[in-house]
Amino acid sequence: MRTIDWADGAIELIDQTLLPGEVRVLRITEVDGLIDAIQRLAVRGAPALGVAGALGVALIAQQQSDEAALREDAMRVRNARPTAVNLSWGVDRALTALPGGRDAVLEEALRIRDEDIAACTSMGQYGADLIEQLVPHGNRIRVATICNTGGLAAVERGTALGVVQTLFERGRLEEAYPLETRPLLQGARLTAWELTQMGAPFRLLVDSAGPFLLSRGLADVVVIGADRIAANGDTANKIGSFSLALAAQRAGIPFIVVAPESTVDMSTATGHDIEIEDRGSAEVVAFGGIATAPEGTKAINPAFDVTPADLITAVVTDRRAVRMDQGETLDKVPFGPTLTR
Amino acid sequence: MRTIDWADGAIELIDQTLLPGEVRVLRITEVDGLIDAIQRLAVRGAPALGVAGALGVALIAQQQSDEAALREDAMRVRNARPTAVNLSWGVDRALTALPGGRDAVLEEALRIRDEDIAACTSMGQYGADLIEQLVPHGNRIRVATICNTGGLAAVERGTALGVVQTLFERGRLEEAYPLETRPLLQGARLTAWELTQMGAPFRLLVDSAGPFLLSRGLADVVVIGADRIAANGDTANKIGSFSLALAAQRAGIPFIVVAPESTVDMSTATGHDIEIEDRGSAEVVAFGGIATAPEGTKAINPAFDVTPADLITAVVTDRRAVRMDQGETLDKVPFGPTLTR
Repeated sequence: MRTIDWADGAIELIDQTLLPGEVRVLRITEVDGLIDAIQRLAVRGAPALGVAGALGVALIAQQQSDEAALREDAMRVRNARPTAVNLSWGVDRALTALPGGRDAVLEEALRIRDEDIAACTSMGQYGADLIEQLVPHGNRIRVATICNTGGLAAVERGTALGVVQTLFERGRLEEAYPLETRPLLQGARLTAWELTQMGAPFRLLVDSAGPFLLSRGLADVVVIGADRIAANGDTANKIGSFSLALAAQRAGIPFIVVAPESTVDMSTATGHDIEIEDRGSAEVVAFGGIATAPEGTKAINPAFDVTPADLITAVVTDRRAVRMDQGETLDKVPFGPTLTR
Repeated sequence: MRTIDWADGAIELIDQTLLPGEVRVLRITEVDGLIDAIQRLAVRGAPALGVAGALGVALIAQQQSDEAALREDAMRVRNARPTAVNLSWGVDRALTALPGGRDAVLEEALRIRDEDIAACTSMGQYGADLIEQLVPHGNRIRVATICNTGGLAAVERGTALGVVQTLFERGRLEEAYPLETRPLLQGARLTAWELTQMGAPFRLLVDSAGPFLLSRGLADVVVIGADRIAANGDTANKIGSFSLALAAQRAGIPFIVVAPESTVDMSTATGHDIEIEDRGSAEVVAFGGIATAPEGTKAINPAFDVTPADLITAVVTDRRAVRMDQGETLDKVPFGPTLTR
């Protein structure tokens, strides 16, 4: 099952707000429905958002022949979540096909979908190869991760969780440790669900337990995804990534960022140039309709944090592994092939 | 309002299981009611449990003149939560006054109550004095903290949150940042409630947001409580403390532990000698009866973590401030007076 796809003239996607309790496929036939799905995180994850943006433009192009109105709707999709560089990338790339007509736009969007599937397969190989090289001491590797970076964040396979899946398929995974990932619990709800689906061994941790358990030798490596990677390697990812990176450094274990090349944003110099989206108080002060804090409580609720490049061992993409810890830089390391083995 | 007190021949305590939704004072006139309140965590926190144990013996002594029966009831209170050291300490200390009669027992119990109030007042002064010295640059100080270390864990004032309260009373608190403190959300439910009651400005953070926001200059200082402080200064406290300490170090801000002298355990050499209790999966995989992870998910759920002494700026007690960052040690720094100003 694909997380997001095009079917019979509409976008179909799994409503991830209902997992793990229910697997419901939303059929989206209007642009406002897509914007709503993006904003309430029914679809989420950098690669999936790239595909959502492109399919969104394809959907608009099917319905809107006035180019100015079409571009206006496309901009509304593009701005649905400000920190997500893949969303705007997907919108922009689909728009480049606009001169060829609506069918060309749809073709370009479907090409983005297929490229994502290939890219995730390749990332899994590059990432698992690197980890097998960095953790040579045992047959079985223990991996901590955060948020959901699996097939649910992409189309078919994931980024960081795709690496975990590849290790599992190679028979090298001892156990995975997903963090629950407050406030929306994507780790508990989605990653635990995906690991259960694939039959991989795992135990769940509250977010604050991750750093401490790393200090006590729980895991051999941390792998995370990325929402945006700046030119210097600073990486914006789900809130909680930074504290895992601090703990990995203190524990002396590798900390690896896994994301498609499209997540590397060479026009953003450093992490300080990345806008941090604050998602407001509501997600923090209540859970499942139950108030968890006194009425009137305000929260600071950053959706992302930024892990500085000096805490990152390597950035793994679908085309290369860039060893930040060895002084390699994103502008210098050449692209390799997309690995499909 | 006191968390627990003696009033008109009975124990009165705030039922903390109903917070933050409802403030209900339980009037306890029978020993079985006290045991029930202790077991279902209506009263919690090490200092408060010590007072509960002592007042429990006073209550029994009012009603029971047969010494054997009285001691039997006292043992039932003592064993209501077998791992709570302060509970048995409070029971035992009140029982030492038994030869003096029921009034002597009550007097001893009230003395324990008053000593807790004095100790927390003193910690607040030592802690606020130190922080004013360490953060001299501005009039207004921003403080991050975790779990509940306020009056609800004690009688009237708390330990780490007592320091925040003292800063607020001195007009020096810019804003407090309590972490919500998964899995049981004591920060969101209890600390946010206490800060609301005292009228102090605060915003709530999910646990993993704390470390990142420290890296972005959110706070001037971190203050935490302690469950146990080893002889070398390693500090066991609520899970999440360690990652705050890592982040405070990287941000270059002080990280301060606040606890009564009774928390310093010179018979425990280092943090590695402290057993980490695992509280099981149930607290992590569901919230308020709603499953947050797929059925069958197992969790690793350490109740607390250990912050190594090298990450701790100072240990503040009711009798002294020990500057770990200046090479001071718990065995060398002499006790000062209990500060009541």
